[in-house]
Amino acid sequence: MKILVINPNTTQSMTDTIGHAAARAAAPGTTTVTVQPDKGPVSIESQYDSAFCVPGMLEIIKAAEEEGGYAGYVVACFRDPGLEAAREIATGPVIGICEAAMHAASMLGKGFSVVSTLKRSAKVQYDLARKYGFIDQLMSVRAAGVPVLELEDAHSGAADKVKAETLKAIEEDGAECVLLGCAGMVDLAQRLTQETGIPVMDGVTVAVKMVEALAGLGLGTSKIVSYAPPREKPYTGAFAANAPGPVHKRAAE
Amino acid sequence: MKILVINPNTTQSMTDTIGHAAARAAAPGTTTVTVQPDKGPVSIESQYDSAFCVPGMLEIIKAAEEEGGYAGYVVACFRDPGLEAAREIATGPVIGICEAAMHAASMLGKGFSVVSTLKRSAKVQYDLARKYGFIDQLMSVRAAGVPVLELEDAHSGAADKVKAETLKAIEEDGAECVLLGCAGMVDLAQRLTQETGIPVMDGVTVAVKMVEALAGLGLGTSKIVSYAPPREKPYTGAFAANAPGPVHKRAAE
Amino acid sequence: MKILVINPNTTQSMTDTIGHAAARAAAPGTTTVTVQPDKGPVSIESQYDSAFCVPGMLEIIKAAEEEGGYAGYVVACFRDPGLEAAREIATGPVIGICEAAMHAASMLGKGFSVVSTLKRSAKVQYDLARKYGFIDQLMSVRAAGVPVLELEDAHSGAADKVKAETLKAIEEDGAECVLLGCAGMVDLAQRLTQETGIPVMDGVTVAVKMVEALAGLGLGTSKIVSYAPPREKPYTGAFAANAPGPVHKRAAE
Amino acid sequence: MKILVINPNTTQSMTDTIGHAAARAAAPGTTTVTVQPDKGPVSIESQYDSAFCVPGMLEIIKAAEEEGGYAGYVVACFRDPGLEAAREIATGPVIGICEAAMHAASMLGKGFSVVSTLKRSAKVQYDLARKYGFIDQLMSVRAAGVPVLELEDAHSGAADKVKAETLKAIEEDGAECVLLGCAGMVDLAQRLTQETGIPVMDGVTVAVKMVEALAGLGLGTSKIVSYAPPREKPYTGAFAANAPGPVHKRAAE
Amino acid sequence: MKILVINPNTTQSMTDTIGHAAARAAAPGTTTVTVQPDKGPVSIESQYDSAFCVPGMLEIIKAAEEEGGYAGYVVACFRDPGLEAAREIATGPVIGICEAAMHAASMLGKGFSVVSTLKRSAKVQYDLARKYGFIDQLMSVRAAGVPVLELEDAHSGAADKVKAETLKAIEEDGAECVLLGCAGMVDLAQRLTQETGIPVMDGVTVAVKMVEALAGLGLGTSKIVSYAPPREKPYTGAFAANAPGPVHKRAAE
Amino acid sequence: MKILVINPNTTQSMTDTIGHAAARAAAPGTTTVTVQPDKGPVSIESQYDSAFCVPGMLEIIKAAEEEGGYAGYVVACFRDPGLEAAREIATGPVIGICEAAMHAASMLGKGFSVVSTLKRSAKVQYDLARKYGFIDQLMSVRAAGVPVLELEDAHSGAADKVKAETLKAIEEDGAECVLLGCAGMVDLAQRLTQETGIPVMDGVTVAVKMVEALAGLGLGTSKIVSYAPPREKPYTGAFAANAPGPVHKRAAE
Repeated sequence: MKILVINPNTTQSMTDTIGHAAARAAAPGTTTVTVQPDKGPVSIESQYDSAFCVPGMLEIIKAAEEEGGYAGYVVACFRDPGLEAAREIATGPVIGICEAAMHAASMLGKGFSVVSTLKRSAKVQYDLARKYGFIDQLMSVRAAGVPVLELEDAHSGAADKVKAETLKAIEEDGAECVLLGCAGMVDLAQRLTQETGIPVMDGVTVAVKMVEALAGLGLGTSKIVSYAPPREKPYTGAFAANAPGPVHKRAAE
Repeated sequence: MKILVINPNTTQSMTDTIGHAAARAAAPGTTTVTVQPDKGPVSIESQYDSAFCVPGMLEIIKAAEEEGGYAGYVVACFRDPGLEAAREIATGPVIGICEAAMHAASMLGKGFSVVSTLKRSAKVQYDLARKYGFIDQLMSVRAAGVPVLELEDAHSGAADKVKAETLKAIEEDGAECVLLGCAGMVDLAQRLTQETGIPVMDGVTVAVKMVEALAGLGLGTSKIVSYAPPREKPYTGAFAANAPGPVHKRAAE
Repeated sequence: MKILVINPNTTQSMTDTIGHAAARAAAPGTTTVTVQPDKGPVSIESQYDSAFCVPGMLEIIKAAEEEGGYAGYVVACFRDPGLEAAREIATGPVIGICEAAMHAASMLGKGFSVVSTLKRSAKVQYDLARKYGFIDQLMSVRAAGVPVLELEDAHSGAADKVKAETLKAIEEDGAECVLLGCAGMVDLAQRLTQETGIPVMDGVTVAVKMVEALAGLGLGTSKIVSYAPPREKPYTGAFAANAPGPVHKRAAE
Repeated sequence: MKILVINPNTTQSMTDTIGHAAARAAAPGTTTVTVQPDKGPVSIESQYDSAFCVPGMLEIIKAAEEEGGYAGYVVACFRDPGLEAAREIATGPVIGICEAAMHAASMLGKGFSVVSTLKRSAKVQYDLARKYGFIDQLMSVRAAGVPVLELEDAHSGAADKVKAETLKAIEEDGAECVLLGCAGMVDLAQRLTQETGIPVMDGVTVAVKMVEALAGLGLGTSKIVSYAPPREKPYTGAFAANAPGPVHKRAAE
Repeated sequence: MKILVINPNTTQSMTDTIGHAAARAAAPGTTTVTVQPDKGPVSIESQYDSAFCVPGMLEIIKAAEEEGGYAGYVVACFRDPGLEAAREIATGPVIGICEAAMHAASMLGKGFSVVSTLKRSAKVQYDLARKYGFIDQLMSVRAAGVPVLELEDAHSGAADKVKAETLKAIEEDGAECVLLGCAGMVDLAQRLTQETGIPVMDGVTVAVKMVEALAGLGLGTSKIVSYAPPREKPYTGAFAANAPGPVHKRAAE
Repeated sequence: MKILVINPNTTQSMTDTIGHAAARAAAPGTTTVTVQPDKGPVSIESQYDSAFCVPGMLEIIKAAEEEGGYAGYVVACFRDPGLEAAREIATGPVIGICEAAMHAASMLGKGFSVVSTLKRSAKVQYDLARKYGFIDQLMSVRAAGVPVLELEDAHSGAADKVKAETLKAIEEDGAECVLLGCAGMVDLAQRLTQETGIPVMDGVTVAVKMVEALAGLGLGTSKIVSYAPPREKPYTGAFAANAPGPVHKRAAE
């Protein structure tokens, strides 16, 4: 099985980090390919950044599908940008790392917290938990006060800040699992699991396993209505080449 | 007061329709300017279309803000694409037409329905109602089975189909107000209000009035945390010019 | 357009304060008339007070409608007393100041708090937020510990207490907008907006603008079912004169 | 134990019907007294009617409390008008008949429906179920299309219409209990329970038993914050005599 | 009327405590019988304990029903174990003590807290409140840090710890009623009600009164669908004797 | 990796069916062992049946853990009986088949339905969806009217009935995925996926893959509070041997 993991930002070192984690998580027989768009923000820390990472990410998936597609796709940003649009153009499952981690946490403990990067992202996490159905299980969102790219810098103290908030989530907020709210924290999960004694999850590895699970059963995205392929139509200007092409089997409308 | 109304698709005739409606709705002393992006889908009927209309729309708002900004902005697509990203870069209020219509309906009757274009959009409306807080008031979403651009064709029978679903929403679903779920239906609202005897609302005109209301009180988007300006950073490739610039007054993070 | 603003308590100085604020908020072409009932509590600080302000308020609206009606009505108490009853007898929109402020706040920031007068009112605000659909956005209700009529006394220190709670709502509770939970605080809003840098809203001025917005589009209360005119019937005793008269066009029942 | 049952409308025959049912339901040792206000609507079929029944009802409770009070109070209208205001001035429990029936139904079956009088009341029932916490258990509200006072007329066919809707609620909506949504239906409950084989409840008798249950344990309304006695203050005009008097033990504010 | 109160654990002294409380609460004319299973945990402090208390409890109810049944049943553990299973085999009402206390509290104050034994039970209380519909009214769950059987020991300091948490619930969490979250706390309720001035409820006595209320009206569990008798079938091994027997009147399936 | 799949009923042929499906779903390197309790109901069609399947199931898990444990556990009944109790005594993940299927469906389509066996189980599915957070996504529960053990009989027409309800769920209820609501339907899933063109899922295979996913990442149940091992204590009578033993590392309480 081949899984395409997309880092929606354009920082190669982060793509590499994500790629290594994805590869380690993959089962024997699974190949993960990790890529990044050729345009867009170097990190995703706002809804504005998010909006500009999506077109490049969709281009990648559209091209992949035209060449036969992957068994499934992982969107490796904890805001789950463009998830629904991606599902419209993919055949296999498309899973966001926030979504994956929340699903996993809800099966492993009663109540989880998210330890995120910046305070401005906190309410986005609440919105996602509400959308996915996990709001009753979301005990808190804590911001470590660390910009995304500082996570790459071993001397930034970022890991300590993430750990400190993880402990507070456990002790003060009633978290029984903790989700690391940025793909850049992927390497911290295992260490914090050991140090805290509770499941501390990054979303990248969980999402890879979720795609393996679903695609392994032959399950893909339901194409019947909401995630049916976009109707064929022209796009204008710089996005002309992104226009959805003809759809062979028309879904219910 | 100057209000910028953005039709996020690239069909000029639809921009014209929206623009005329916006202008008619505006109070004396309000000027509305209605524009469309220079790139993207000719109509927005999927989350994929939605993703590709947002960058062009944000460019328009960013440019406008750099030239002094408008009193407020209207996003004239009933999926409210890019609303939160827009708020991060705007100073005045930014209001989506779905949002505006739902707010208005919830003050005028107990329970409303949306009459939309295609069935594939129905659950998007439920998601938006859930997000905005109006899910308990959303009695139903009915699809007229009309693609967006057919609304422009007087001979398509689209108006009759919209009316038929409006009547069913009233009689079968308990709707006391009906929202027309596409900016292209703006000219039907007044006629259907008269013919049905209940408030039938298009979102464009309501959103214009909501911006007038809020901006008229000197109220703008709260810039303190969630809608603070995006952090300055490079964007790569074709989106390099869209990178957020320096922020003068740093918000809480 | 003529808007009738009703202060549901019987304190003239408070009616004056409200009236001046309403008049300042009104657009050119809008006339606001602000009145108070001829019977009832001098301030509204309990559900009991609330119950006794409603009959006088409904008398005012019924009389106004019999004389041709106003374009719309504002109920200027932050408990929104009698709102649904008023809608049954009015043709134009009827908007409560709590409702109006919550709608506005939800379009300007992600999460708002209410700074109210007395602790005993706090859960009423939660109930209203739940009813209107904004409970997920209500970060906290803070009581300034100030009885309503002390707000009128410049030497009471009330303004400072309100400001202190406003700042706590921002810093501790995650409020991105703050609503002043009493019509008597109307003059503080603008000052606190400037001093805190976030939208601090009073409901009176927002409600006036909301009525302008809806009535300006020719929209009124939906009279089809829930807000249909009360059925004609006798009332006995002291309320005999308040009995609903004949309804010309019968609504669905 | 003495329980005061208040029919909030002013139709003596309906007070009698309620009174007989209450007396039959009372345990040995319980005395029920059933009264009606000296002013207000002859039946309660709108929020407007509701508003005008409350002052008279509160006068009754206030007077009762001043004379030593009852063990508890029943508000015998299925809209539960004035319930919270009544709790502020009462010491014992105050229970509405809608509330009581919903509580009971939720302990006897999984999912209940309300069979009400007129269609215009349906959404009021949804609002109450939402407020009390039973919305997930409310399968439907069905209107028998019978005005309140026709229930008194044996030849009106009202009983048959109520039965027909009760059966539909069971067969089509998944109701496992049915609540009769008007105090005037009290005599139908027992008969329909036998004829349908499921619990069909009127609220009057259930509310009497609930007051017996709570007051029998020495439990009364919590007077600490939300239902603390109204603050002493003047009322003006025709309501001057209704002003809340001095409160001996001040609650938290 | 005869009510069967079941202490689902196997500690006789706790059954005695519960039995005395139940007997004191019962109205003249009501007889309460309090029993415990012949197998299972000596106290119920986990979902595992809960699972092993249920079979013995169901045996008791099944045997009781086969001998003519009781007017109703009380499940005297604050986790409400086996409540739905019990309803399937009982004819009269079956009421859990957590359920009963939450219903009562929601009619006596705006918002309640639970003071429970161990921290590990806290989220069970949230789950129950969510299931019953009272989550919006549940202000907090506080653990006194007292194992169940220590409540029996007068020298354990348990009562003081329970009181301390009760006071914190009132002062810090906004509780207007407090529920004692263990059947073993039944003797504390009255004392804490007096000492705190708010209703402090144990569930045992409230549940007895609720059964009296419902059974006193001739109301029993709805047997039509969800709580219909279990279908006849063999059970194997040690549970062979627990197999459901023939059902005389088949319910809807 | 070794996964223990527990069929909680005592019908060997059903255990075999489940076992074959689990084995087919397992990845290379995963061994599934499928077992059934030595006591309890031959099928689980009520909460009463459910209560009597749990002790045997917990015995199996407890014994397995004492012998070193499995990587994870699957509870193969669509009511997810005893899930939380099982988590308290297991170290690895414990996943119910209803839970697993709902999680999967929510990542593959917008809205799913459950096609279940008997009508009496329908509201149990709603309760589970509400508990897990998927109630907004649950479009309907449809009962095929087939008792569990008839699913084993090729001539019962059960498969046709399940298919008919699956199609209705798609066409009438808006389901984009369908969950087969009984472990006995496991062999129908693949066939119905092909025949309907949407993901039709059985829970057994999905749960196996979910355990593989989580355990494959080294994630287990959070033992910190809610799912901490049960406290050591005696059990009496026939359950004496089930008493929880000493806990080596004490969790927070």
